[in-house]
Amino acid sequence: MRLLKQIEKPEDVKKLKMDDLNLLAAEIREFIIENVSQTGGHLAPNLGVVEMTLALHYIFDTTTDRIVWDVGHQSYVHKIITGRKDSFATLRQFGGLAGFPKREESIHDAFNTGHSSTSISAALGFALARDRKKENYQVAAIIGDGALTGGQAFEALNETGHLGVDMTVILNDNEMSIAENVGAMSSYLSRLRSDPSYTKRKKDIELLLRKVPAIGTTVVKAAERVKDSLKYLVVPGMLFEEMGFTYLGPIDGHNIRDLIAVLKQAKEMEGPVLLHILTKKGKGYKPAEYDPSLFHGVGPFNLESGEVIKKSGPPTYTKVFSKALVDLAEKDERIAAITAAMPEGTGLNNFAARYPERFFDVGIAEQNAVTMATSMALAGMRPVVAIYSTFLQRAYDQIIHDVCLQKAPVLFAIDRAGIVGHDGPTHHGAFDLSYLRHIPNMAILAPKDEEELRHMLSTALQYQGPVALRYPRGQGVGVPLSQEYQTIPWGKGETLVTGKDLVIIAGGTMVYPALETGKILDKQGISTTVINARFIKPLDEELIKAAVEKHKYVVTMEENVIAGGFGAGVLELLARLGLAKKVLNIGLPDAFVTQGNTSTIHESLNLTAEKMNQRIRDYFNFS
Amino acid sequence: MRLLKQIEKPEDVKKLKMDDLNLLAAEIREFIIENVSQTGGHLAPNLGVVEMTLALHYIFDTTTDRIVWDVGHQSYVHKIITGRKDSFATLRQFGGLAGFPKREESIHDAFNTGHSSTSISAALGFALARDRKKENYQVAAIIGDGALTGGQAFEALNETGHLGVDMTVILNDNEMSIAENVGAMSSYLSRLRSDPSYTKRKKDIELLLRKVPAIGTTVVKAAERVKDSLKYLVVPGMLFEEMGFTYLGPIDGHNIRDLIAVLKQAKEMEGPVLLHILTKKGKGYKPAEYDPSLFHGVGPFNLESGEVIKKSGPPTYTKVFSKALVDLAEKDERIAAITAAMPEGTGLNNFAARYPERFFDVGIAEQNAVTMATSMALAGMRPVVAIYSTFLQRAYDQIIHDVCLQKAPVLFAIDRAGIVGHDGPTHHGAFDLSYLRHIPNMAILAPKDEEELRHMLSTALQYQGPVALRYPRGQGVGVPLSQEYQTIPWGKGETLVTGKDLVIIAGGTMVYPALETGKILDKQGISTTVINARFIKPLDEELIKAAVEKHKYVVTMEENVIAGGFGAGVLELLARLGLAKKVLNIGLPDAFVTQGNTSTIHESLNLTAEKMNQRIRDYFNFS
Repeated sequence: MRLLKQIEKPEDVKKLKMDDLNLLAAEIREFIIENVSQTGGHLAPNLGVVEMTLALHYIFDTTTDRIVWDVGHQSYVHKIITGRKDSFATLRQFGGLAGFPKREESIHDAFNTGHSSTSISAALGFALARDRKKENYQVAAIIGDGALTGGQAFEALNETGHLGVDMTVILNDNEMSIAENVGAMSSYLSRLRSDPSYTKRKKDIELLLRKVPAIGTTVVKAAERVKDSLKYLVVPGMLFEEMGFTYLGPIDGHNIRDLIAVLKQAKEMEGPVLLHILTKKGKGYKPAEYDPSLFHGVGPFNLESGEVIKKSGPPTYTKVFSKALVDLAEKDERIAAITAAMPEGTGLNNFAARYPERFFDVGIAEQNAVTMATSMALAGMRPVVAIYSTFLQRAYDQIIHDVCLQKAPVLFAIDRAGIVGHDGPTHHGAFDLSYLRHIPNMAILAPKDEEELRHMLSTALQYQGPVALRYPRGQGVGVPLSQEYQTIPWGKGETLVTGKDLVIIAGGTMVYPALETGKILDKQGISTTVINARFIKPLDEELIKAAVEKHKYVVTMEENVIAGGFGAGVLELLARLGLAKKVLNIGLPDAFVTQGNTSTIHESLNLTAEKMNQRIRDYFNFS
Repeated sequence: MRLLKQIEKPEDVKKLKMDDLNLLAAEIREFIIENVSQTGGHLAPNLGVVEMTLALHYIFDTTTDRIVWDVGHQSYVHKIITGRKDSFATLRQFGGLAGFPKREESIHDAFNTGHSSTSISAALGFALARDRKKENYQVAAIIGDGALTGGQAFEALNETGHLGVDMTVILNDNEMSIAENVGAMSSYLSRLRSDPSYTKRKKDIELLLRKVPAIGTTVVKAAERVKDSLKYLVVPGMLFEEMGFTYLGPIDGHNIRDLIAVLKQAKEMEGPVLLHILTKKGKGYKPAEYDPSLFHGVGPFNLESGEVIKKSGPPTYTKVFSKALVDLAEKDERIAAITAAMPEGTGLNNFAARYPERFFDVGIAEQNAVTMATSMALAGMRPVVAIYSTFLQRAYDQIIHDVCLQKAPVLFAIDRAGIVGHDGPTHHGAFDLSYLRHIPNMAILAPKDEEELRHMLSTALQYQGPVALRYPRGQGVGVPLSQEYQTIPWGKGETLVTGKDLVIIAGGTMVYPALETGKILDKQGISTTVINARFIKPLDEELIKAAVEKHKYVVTMEENVIAGGFGAGVLELLARLGLAKKVLNIGLPDAFVTQGNTSTIHESLNLTAEKMNQRIRDYFNFS
């Protein structure tokens, strides 16, 4: 790591000669592979952009120029050469470096990202502000071909091309984002990549025009008009040109010399430029090149073999959901499954393999996924839309306006609800109970464990209206899984433990911690009832009313922000019933939650049984 | 109206000869103009699609075929010829016909709409369900050129082209949606409309190829390659062709014969077809042709003169906001204004006229608007994003992920918050307090009247973080407007009336009704305090705590769903403070609210002072 050692800031990259830049790229790859094999992280995307990132810093000065990384999981190289390599071992850890760009970390990070398809909008805002304030700096967005399928990217391209703003959009085309890419745009990019005839064609036309006998004005005029329209033949990125961009490319994303040259050219051009760069995901690490999907976001792995270090223990919620959906779809042909570019992450890959006709990956396009599901449901199918809690935020309007207003029986399988861990604040599923609960006609279920998830899935699939099933990232509780699917009584919770002083009404992932807390309270002489709400909406009025009337002390627990969440729903119910009671709401705070190990975060948020016990004692003044 | 009288169902249209179809079109125009001059409604869009709608029903059978109208404000002609002409006088009235397609109204309405850019997704879902279920019907989406700028439309085009699904997208190109159109897509469509050389070019090329001397294989090969690439020259809708669609057009949207012919062709083609139809907004009514923007959505007007019947009385909130923003921007050059295709509706047209350099209309692209505003704010500007409450739902994720996570000082001017009246359930601003309140770092202000709106705007513009200002549609309360702008103490509410038995804590539009209710209660012997919360977030803890402790009875009032809204915030606060109190939450119900006159709706929801008085008496058992 001779060269990397010398790189403390981007200026140091600028001093290197071409050969050394290539050596540096190799060292950075090695550095990233070693580190991520320990910490886990987004390996393949970063191995693909080493040369591109070096070239960017060679041409731009990120102390003033603004570079926006779309999604941001490919910003490791950028972080390494902007003074953060020494803290790289803390990547994605509690209190450590973020896995995404973060303005709080460095002046070189212009804009925080995490979700897809925002970068062109962000770059546009910078460029407009720069021009209005008559300042002078460069603006660039780096966006993957996958992220380009998100509608917001198109909105921003449309506006940027229209305004003719001076900025560069770098299309990082690796022929796949997280899963295999889909969509007409993707086919279009393939054609650009593979069609050598574009350049040939230009020569052909010129040749032809020279051969045309110069007789008759008609022919001459025709020839002129053909010349005018030459660009329609020779410009490969016509689609982008039509949108108002100057298209440059495609360019080999692993050739630093070419990259530097074309970036220089783009910098000097006026107006919006689209730079089409071809990269290879996982470049330089064989296991990642072979399976870029596995190594997109990966846990710790064995450096030599590339084998991902498997966790022992219970299956994940995702896996249990995955298998249950395949089971249930066998008996019900109406069931379809929709993902927004996350077949692996959501576990729908098994469904896809088994029922390819009923499986739809719409790309990173949550809005389209939800409205499309609505009409499928109205036409008699039973669509299951599996999207992470944080990404479903994108389709909030469609859930209201399409699904719920029409009472369409769409099932939302909301994975990654609650704290997700190392991906941090952009990825925690902290809000879904709050953003769904206030929508009329929406039902929300949350299982206490992986076995209940199975029954709830089966139950929800029988419901004739919009319904959401929210469950967390990671392993289940470890309960035995049955063979049957039970139908859970609609709108009914269950009392797990009966006490007489205090009642804990808990939702989803907080049910087991509630049981633990209850045990501690019991030992302390506070006889505790624990209720598994099962239904976040509609609430089990009867059960909750009786419990609140019977117990002196009431506590709610949820893994969602308190504002507008499950506990708020209980408060609203008690207010409606005219019950005056002190209620302690336990949940996520009114603040963005940091990254880290999930249990560390729970500890820091006072969500462990011990901490919750203390909070309960403090709140109710138990001495 | 000889012909229209005979039209009871679409079948009756099919029986007519070409001449009679043209006569019928004229009669329908007359019918619509007459009716809408009485009821108000979306006049210009409907006058533009008379022939297109007749042709659609001539070719399709909407008892089985699914036609999805984007936004849906252009569905009047469709409603008239599908058995609803006799109830047309009830259009947009309480209990009457909806101004948008509504499945509950008719089998001919395939999908409910109201918001923009959903139709292609909806059509895609129908087409996919049809194919999977091996059914046999036609699917079409009608989308305006304005709605095409919404990202979801692109997501759906991308997926439809990719899957090659058999369906037709009809691009209703009227060169403007509500406001003048923006974006590169719009320029592209202009070129398609105006460029006669596309067809000429085809002939030119053919001519040239014939003239090429047939000597030398190089030239022959070149000629062959040129032939291959002919489509790049001759197909006008290349951008759509690249997306996987067969492009047909442009077609005169007022020539029924041509429309029928091309629709027949589209119906018979396999795979996705994009039909580009040119229409004139307001066609056939001079005042609407002259000012289609005014007659897009219009109140009752004088049939002869086209003069809109003006309401006397106080200025609207929108107008007061509009003027205040222009004032404040004079002293602060950092202030920019962003609209998503609604310069008139949001009142930003005055800002645009005065400060064109700082005004941005991004088209129907709320997501892009919000992220773009974020980076503008980070770069030192002070962007004001003015979007209706219901349309801001589209940018929920961007508000969380871009604005609030980065604490960017973006000001959201949320117009049309609360009940909006005749546009009905898709347009009421029923959810904004609930979808914003749970987002960390977000502040929310709601003025009690138009004068307070001015001060709050000035106050919010000084705040160094994300802030939303929500105010209703329609006229202000009628209070005098001052010349100065005051700074309202941050996070502080105000006590308007001091009593001793009962306290009403009200937000925004409910403050005046709260005062009225308080007067009635006072007369009934219940001494009532009325608090104007001013801040929905952060709540004035001190004031609310003291009020709740002092009064026996507590009531909250808001024009937002109760779930997760302002009242829920008060309940959460009391729970946190450990105060046990019966609280009556008054607000919008957990149901979609119908259309009609705003005061009629308020009456039906028991939100008038008299009704609320009764609810309070019932809740607290006042005898």
